[in-house]
Amino acid sequence: MNKTLEQILESSRTYTSEGRVADYIPELAKANREEIGIFVATAEGDYYAGDWDKPFTIQSIVKPIFLMLTAIDNGIDFVKAHVGVEATGKPFNAIDYAEPLLLKEHINPMVNIGAIAVCGLVKAASNEERFQRLLHFTKKITGNPQLEIDREVYESEKKTGNKNRALAYLLKNSGMIYGSVEELLDVYFAMCSVKVTCKDLANMGYLLANRGVDRSGERIIPREDTIFLNAVLTTSGMYDGSGEFATTVGIPAKSGVGGGIMADCPGRMGIGIYSPGLDKKGNSVAGVKMLERLSRELQLSIF
Amino acid sequence: MNKTLEQILESSRTYTSEGRVADYIPELAKANREEIGIFVATAEGDYYAGDWDKPFTIQSIVKPIFLMLTAIDNGIDFVKAHVGVEATGKPFNAIDYAEPLLLKEHINPMVNIGAIAVCGLVKAASNEERFQRLLHFTKKITGNPQLEIDREVYESEKKTGNKNRALAYLLKNSGMIYGSVEELLDVYFAMCSVKVTCKDLANMGYLLANRGVDRSGERIIPREDTIFLNAVLTTSGMYDGSGEFATTVGIPAKSGVGGGIMADCPGRMGIGIYSPGLDKKGNSVAGVKMLERLSRELQLSIF
Amino acid sequence: MNKTLEQILESSRTYTSEGRVADYIPELAKANREEIGIFVATAEGDYYAGDWDKPFTIQSIVKPIFLMLTAIDNGIDFVKAHVGVEATGKPFNAIDYAEPLLLKEHINPMVNIGAIAVCGLVKAASNEERFQRLLHFTKKITGNPQLEIDREVYESEKKTGNKNRALAYLLKNSGMIYGSVEELLDVYFAMCSVKVTCKDLANMGYLLANRGVDRSGERIIPREDTIFLNAVLTTSGMYDGSGEFATTVGIPAKSGVGGGIMADCPGRMGIGIYSPGLDKKGNSVAGVKMLERLSRELQLSIF
Amino acid sequence: MNKTLEQILESSRTYTSEGRVADYIPELAKANREEIGIFVATAEGDYYAGDWDKPFTIQSIVKPIFLMLTAIDNGIDFVKAHVGVEATGKPFNAIDYAEPLLLKEHINPMVNIGAIAVCGLVKAASNEERFQRLLHFTKKITGNPQLEIDREVYESEKKTGNKNRALAYLLKNSGMIYGSVEELLDVYFAMCSVKVTCKDLANMGYLLANRGVDRSGERIIPREDTIFLNAVLTTSGMYDGSGEFATTVGIPAKSGVGGGIMADCPGRMGIGIYSPGLDKKGNSVAGVKMLERLSRELQLSIF
Repeated sequence: MNKTLEQILESSRTYTSEGRVADYIPELAKANREEIGIFVATAEGDYYAGDWDKPFTIQSIVKPIFLMLTAIDNGIDFVKAHVGVEATGKPFNAIDYAEPLLLKEHINPMVNIGAIAVCGLVKAASNEERFQRLLHFTKKITGNPQLEIDREVYESEKKTGNKNRALAYLLKNSGMIYGSVEELLDVYFAMCSVKVTCKDLANMGYLLANRGVDRSGERIIPREDTIFLNAVLTTSGMYDGSGEFATTVGIPAKSGVGGGIMADCPGRMGIGIYSPGLDKKGNSVAGVKMLERLSRELQLSIF
Repeated sequence: MNKTLEQILESSRTYTSEGRVADYIPELAKANREEIGIFVATAEGDYYAGDWDKPFTIQSIVKPIFLMLTAIDNGIDFVKAHVGVEATGKPFNAIDYAEPLLLKEHINPMVNIGAIAVCGLVKAASNEERFQRLLHFTKKITGNPQLEIDREVYESEKKTGNKNRALAYLLKNSGMIYGSVEELLDVYFAMCSVKVTCKDLANMGYLLANRGVDRSGERIIPREDTIFLNAVLTTSGMYDGSGEFATTVGIPAKSGVGGGIMADCPGRMGIGIYSPGLDKKGNSVAGVKMLERLSRELQLSIF
Repeated sequence: MNKTLEQILESSRTYTSEGRVADYIPELAKANREEIGIFVATAEGDYYAGDWDKPFTIQSIVKPIFLMLTAIDNGIDFVKAHVGVEATGKPFNAIDYAEPLLLKEHINPMVNIGAIAVCGLVKAASNEERFQRLLHFTKKITGNPQLEIDREVYESEKKTGNKNRALAYLLKNSGMIYGSVEELLDVYFAMCSVKVTCKDLANMGYLLANRGVDRSGERIIPREDTIFLNAVLTTSGMYDGSGEFATTVGIPAKSGVGGGIMADCPGRMGIGIYSPGLDKKGNSVAGVKMLERLSRELQLSIF
Repeated sequence: MNKTLEQILESSRTYTSEGRVADYIPELAKANREEIGIFVATAEGDYYAGDWDKPFTIQSIVKPIFLMLTAIDNGIDFVKAHVGVEATGKPFNAIDYAEPLLLKEHINPMVNIGAIAVCGLVKAASNEERFQRLLHFTKKITGNPQLEIDREVYESEKKTGNKNRALAYLLKNSGMIYGSVEELLDVYFAMCSVKVTCKDLANMGYLLANRGVDRSGERIIPREDTIFLNAVLTTSGMYDGSGEFATTVGIPAKSGVGGGIMADCPGRMGIGIYSPGLDKKGNSVAGVKMLERLSRELQLSIF
């Protein structure tokens, strides 16, 4: 299996030169486009190749984490009463908003505006507590108690994140955020800046693939929640490349502009991917290629 | 199993009074909202309940049929070069089109404009031949050599289908339709008017579930095409209710405004559903309810 | 005055090399980009410079003609009950249409979809009669009984005009066209293909400037209709460059992709312009420049 | 003339019961829907009727004031390089924004997003100074040194103005606001809360009508700026009712949700209107009616 991963990684390495490293903040632009890693977590053991232990910021892969903890706190039905699950057919940070108020139907938790709303549903007495609970939960599901945030990325996101700020004020305007907008954005920016490795993402994927039970055998989230999450990841986890990804890869997955992809094959394995060169839709070019080949090789498509 | 189907059908019967029968043409408005049927086709045998043998027009469920025959004729890659697979986030017959030309990315084969384009890719020397090939193929995959079109529905669609006509001329304007627009629309309208039963749809679903091999053991379409189709059905088969349907049912499916739903559980079964009362998104209310319960009862979700 | 026109024309001649000749049909692409003409019609007499007598197709400048004859036939209130007058903020041939039916508010008579609808409101027992009435009326208001259509442009528009065809079928779908769509499009395409000169357009402008009374002293349209038309021309006569044109020129005007502009200064003069190089919004580059200079020179702005 | 105004006001009084008082903040909802006033300022003298001396908040009528002072500070060309002048065809607070950055073309100074941007172009060392300069300028052009802001409306706008906050952060994200967003919004909200009367608005309109020279004979703004402003007011001063208003009234004007309308008839008069019941587009119902009748009575249409 390690050999398979090696082969897939090497044959996909050429794609690292395609795509562009995210550069909307200077810290992300520093990423080394030649890095490429993969990690597979199964009940039988771990397999890996390349730069699987290089840290990068989690970015949008934190979105399913918001959803998981919110669902634990409030139940899936509460969550579904607040955000929709239809694909928007729009880029991840688009706004199309002529109505006096935003409609739940337009707030997909896998795009920024929905993720900010969902983040605000995590139960906490303060936003500091909200952040601590989220960080603790992320450590738990990645099996990595050392996780920490990248201060420079966080500061930079906070300073330049005016589009997310705009989205948050739209939510506030529609009564979908309670309390301070700036404080909630702080939690959001901080959580997007958590540094992870392929291994961390693979463990997170394992939890979903293993129906909510982690590698130590502890149940973290209800079985039904993993079904909900896998459905949402499949229909909208890869931005507006989700349809194409479903046909060529067919694995529930979430990508981030840091170059990571978290994927899970129900009943089989969790996968963590890293390669920072992105396609136009914001997904890792070499990462998607590796998943496509792994899916074909091991017949992983759920379809 | 028949008992299970009976129970599910009876407990869903109350939903027949919700929803509205399609009425954009008088012939569809004549449908009896109280009718409700289900049919399950497995390798071991057939199971059914209610009005499974009542005929209704196939409508949009013909869209995956266009896609199958087009893929057989031209290969999946050719098809993907002509139409996109991203969810549009729009109603099935929306137009949003300020560009001089339509973009492939905006033409999903599960919405009308994409389906008309795909219909035109079926190989034929004439549109009459195109229709005959499509009808013959539909008879084959439903296992029903008696299929015929509902002349009244066909005439009515043809007479009043000016929005589809507009969509077709947009395609023509963008060089995505070759030959006569009116003749191609004729094929489209005629194929939407084919009368089917739950059994016919279940057999069609069986073919997809059984990876392209029909109940007689004959391979009709390549294995890869069924993976492609199931992915497309999952992300956009239920109009802009596809995301919600994925989370609550989790089965690749296609609905039509005639009240039918064709669904397939890979490796397990094909399902045909009928109940003409529709929700706002155009899906059968009681039909979706039956699938939701069947999915939970038999753990059919692919997620 | 002729000297003023000469100077303005010569100083604007350099702009003829900017812009692009319309090329969506081959016949239009044949236009000579170096041609430039201007004609001013006043109560005191005619003034002109350059290629004022070179014929070109009227194209969108026929839109106010549709509106005039429709208003004569039905009254302004009837017309306003059928089409809106708000600027759409969209290119002239955009479609944005997720509603089951088009709304009157979205159908501005100065963009294609609205013009087709308005053309259909001209009273006639047949579309042949509709065309004859429109042609006769155009001859009358231009004072040119020799007007005829350019057969090649007409045939070409008819053959390739599939986007207009799409727009017309949307109107049909919404009950905004009565009778045959194809026949009505025929009238539309034929009228867009009428060959005019700057002089013809200036006479037409004179009629509007002179409050509905033509140069022979005959009242052709009611005074109120000229007020209505001048308002519509000002807010939406220059496609989505109307706002800019209002600030820099400030004269009610209508442009066409043939390179013509018809303008009228209430109480003062009618103006005809020709130069076929267009800017991105579809307006004659050198033509707009000439009007800008003429407006400044003679203080023609209504603002 | 006072008699004419009385008659027009009385015959329009019935329309005060149509329309709805703005209620997005409680302070505005307190307005008395039965109030109705008109004031006309001419070189020969003042004319008025009804509640012409009742104060109300200026709201969006401050938008042309931002534009005037910005143009004085930077010149019209600088302003035009920053904001567009095309009608958006959208409600005053719509957002449609899938691009990474806002485009100048989409930022009309008569809708909120454009007005906030223009407000930020007023020259000042601090936002406090910006506010003081704007207030001083407003006192000058209304001829009313007593103007002050309504503290309750201001506090309420500031507290609940999250949609405007969102718009401002979009501008910030696109580099169209320099400095603090919150401080600039403070200026914006404060200026929208200035209390004015019909007389104040009529004096402001007089300035525009009189080509930039106020009633004391002092030149306040260049002649060219009044032409620019009248063009912008005509094409987009009445929200997305501007086209209709142009055809029925034909006078450059700006309305606010406080119920006011400022209008100017070039070379003739300035008009101030007040009646707080609004139509769906945000314009005073009885106010528009009075202007329509006054325009017809005195032949004020510029078209």
